[in-house]
Amino acid sequence: MSEVFTFGIKSGQQCTIIDITKEVQNKVRESGIKNGFCIIFIPHTTAGITLNENADPDVVKDFLMEMSKLIPQSDGDQRSEGNSTAQMESSVIGFSQTVIINEGRLLLGTWQGIYFVEFDGPRIRKVHVKIIEG
Amino acid sequence: MSEVFTFGIKSGQQCTIIDITKEVQNKVRESGIKNGFCIIFIPHTTAGITLNENADPDVVKDFLMEMSKLIPQSDGDQRSEGNSTAQMESSVIGFSQTVIINEGRLLLGTWQGIYFVEFDGPRIRKVHVKIIEG
Amino acid sequence: MSEVFTFGIKSGQQCTIIDITKEVQNKVRESGIKNGFCIIFIPHTTAGITLNENADPDVVKDFLMEMSKLIPQSDGDQRSEGNSTAQMESSVIGFSQTVIINEGRLLLGTWQGIYFVEFDGPRIRKVHVKIIEG
Repeated sequence: MSEVFTFGIKSGQQCTIIDITKEVQNKVRESGIKNGFCIIFIPHTTAGITLNENADPDVVKDFLMEMSKLIPQSDGDQRSEGNSTAQMESSVIGFSQTVIINEGRLLLGTWQGIYFVEFDGPRIRKVHVKIIEG
Repeated sequence: MSEVFTFGIKSGQQCTIIDITKEVQNKVRESGIKNGFCIIFIPHTTAGITLNENADPDVVKDFLMEMSKLIPQSDGDQRSEGNSTAQMESSVIGFSQTVIINEGRLLLGTWQGIYFVEFDGPRIRKVHVKIIEG
Repeated sequence: MSEVFTFGIKSGQQCTIIDITKEVQNKVRESGIKNGFCIIFIPHTTAGITLNENADPDVVKDFLMEMSKLIPQSDGDQRSEGNSTAQMESSVIGFSQTVIINEGRLLLGTWQGIYFVEFDGPRIRKVHVKIIEG
């Protein structure tokens, strides 16, 4: 089982969060692996992967509001791209999540979903999923 | 070795941190696995798992003080539960830690302990431990 | 493949970030493992591991500026060592990264590098690298 699954994602705004739980669960199903874990990893420096509540539509709004309070948009960075705020947000949220697989399913809590977090969109992004038996 | 170990934990306050190093080390010992790693994962959206100093009793107080400075309690969130602050704190700390196992022991530093972090207690919580040989 | 690779690192300032991508990639090459993943883990409570842009020399300056805005140096902590700020910064950035290995190489994005983050230097530090086939 040495394959890496990759899927694309399109973020529609500068900052947004997108539920990718189904995409990841589908890759787990396709792999046929019943027990182990998967690594969800993004090859980007201005986006993140997190877990969050999957039931309430205000979660997206609240997440972005809390994030902008935590790290207000910066004016003073040294680089022409001006994306040091997005890079710090990404470092704080993290670039991967590791989720246990149990009896063919992601061992998430009832309210947990896997979210891609965009901090410098809109863009086309990639998500890698590595599934390991064990 | 496809088993997932799960143990319960009871948080006594709204915000607190609880040392779970011994519980995790015990599961590693029970597994009989000498080399590999373990994933410590919580199925919750308003709690986290981190590593922190295990020697000083003021660590708990200092951690909670620093956390409340980082993310002050919010008034403006959209949801009736009002737990968007706890969810952001959880996303920032993270929902899992991955620790290497070497010769039957967690390869932690001398001062490192594994801590469950409660942001929305008091509650009964669960911690999953997946141990992989390799 | 039960070995853990360890290398030392010397941080020259109180706060700094150091690119360790080559050191990790070298360990992957030496392992001979073509597909799997690696865990980069530090046995410290006042330092972190993150991914960040590897192309722009201002990244270091910007990262430290953003970090000091996020968590200003504290005066009020209870402990004589006075390192609760460094410990919170470390918990926020995280103590490990998990990176997929694909065809013998770290599956990083074009602009991603692996960085050791020092919050309480200057010091001699250790980085553990565990490489797993799968």
